[in-house]
Amino acid sequence: MICKACFELGIKLGALFHQFIGLPVGFENVEIVEKAIESCVKLQPFVVDAKVEISRDALKRNLSKFGYTTLSPEMLKAEVVVEIENVRVKGTLKWVEEMKYPYMDFEVISF
Amino acid sequence: MICKACFELGIKLGALFHQFIGLPVGFENVEIVEKAIESCVKLQPFVVDAKVEISRDALKRNLSKFGYTTLSPEMLKAEVVVEIENVRVKGTLKWVEEMKYPYMDFEVISF
Amino acid sequence: MICKACFELGIKLGALFHQFIGLPVGFENVEIVEKAIESCVKLQPFVVDAKVEISRDALKRNLSKFGYTTLSPEMLKAEVVVEIENVRVKGTLKWVEEMKYPYMDFEVISF
Amino acid sequence: MICKACFELGIKLGALFHQFIGLPVGFENVEIVEKAIESCVKLQPFVVDAKVEISRDALKRNLSKFGYTTLSPEMLKAEVVVEIENVRVKGTLKWVEEMKYPYMDFEVISF
Repeated sequence: MICKACFELGIKLGALFHQFIGLPVGFENVEIVEKAIESCVKLQPFVVDAKVEISRDALKRNLSKFGYTTLSPEMLKAEVVVEIENVRVKGTLKWVEEMKYPYMDFEVISF
Repeated sequence: MICKACFELGIKLGALFHQFIGLPVGFENVEIVEKAIESCVKLQPFVVDAKVEISRDALKRNLSKFGYTTLSPEMLKAEVVVEIENVRVKGTLKWVEEMKYPYMDFEVISF
Repeated sequence: MICKACFELGIKLGALFHQFIGLPVGFENVEIVEKAIESCVKLQPFVVDAKVEISRDALKRNLSKFGYTTLSPEMLKAEVVVEIENVRVKGTLKWVEEMKYPYMDFEVISF
Repeated sequence: MICKACFELGIKLGALFHQFIGLPVGFENVEIVEKAIESCVKLQPFVVDAKVEISRDALKRNLSKFGYTTLSPEMLKAEVVVEIENVRVKGTLKWVEEMKYPYMDFEVISF
């Protein structure tokens, strides 16, 4: 059951990243975008919690001449909790600059 | 200038469709998803208005066993208005069942 | 290590689905699209094999008046194998009509 | 008819950008990805030519520790030609560093 929970958690993080990268984002809509992404993750089976944070620093650095940018891997941070029966696992997504990679990891919280 | 406005309008409709198709949606988050998509369109250059509507009927018909579905072309309706100098054009996206196609069209409102 | 492999496998399947749903596809390009998606999955860490199949029947049923359609969940079938140290897990994605859902599952092949 | 051609051209460029940003790409699959994107654009109504180029320099700069990256706006260059009746328009997409923006433009080739 722990494996199943980890598999489901991976699906949610992979989906989150690839569905939303590319979306137009700026300071005007960053909060509603965070909430909307969270709402999409929470709909999915076994998800008990989801938090999405778009880095305001990375957003600022990437703003185009037109005052917005497209959501990129460096900006996106998320935490998703999945529960199946008594197993609860938490996954995180965050940009790791040294790897130039949106790193995803997990930990088992209870089982 | 009318051509430029039509070009920019096309960009917005093509972007809207291809960015958001596939997103997890259900009755719990359909409103925030509509608002978030509108907010993304409104950020883009020359856009003066954007309305997005996800068909509740099509949503209902497509709901999976898990109570949500992924946003599909049949569900998505949008209206975007672009203005460049004094030219204003309005574009629409809607599913046309006889074509099995998410049809996009435009009209010049003023110039 | 089995959990880690399952987590990584989930990421790949969630990514595959949400990156490519919405892509324009018809009989002219269905093979190159399958190969390109496979190539994208194979780049990712720990993936040792990936097979992607777009159902020709579902494609045919969904063709628009213009002779193509957008890739939808009903058309997409995939198999991905992940290996970490000596653990090998295989994941599958396929549309299950009774659930109206793109069901993802996995099995441990060796550990 | 020129306006209609410009509108259709805009749709293709907006679609191209937002469908494929985020896709896993590295030196192993960059050619098949270029060809697959071109094939997707060519399926769409009124398109008579499409060329897609992923910048090898930008790709190299962005490679992660794992030897690949996700397709980002800086890497993507495209040229699409649309023809409706006797009107032919060409659109381009390219990253403009000073704007930090994936700039799209068009020119009327014949009418």
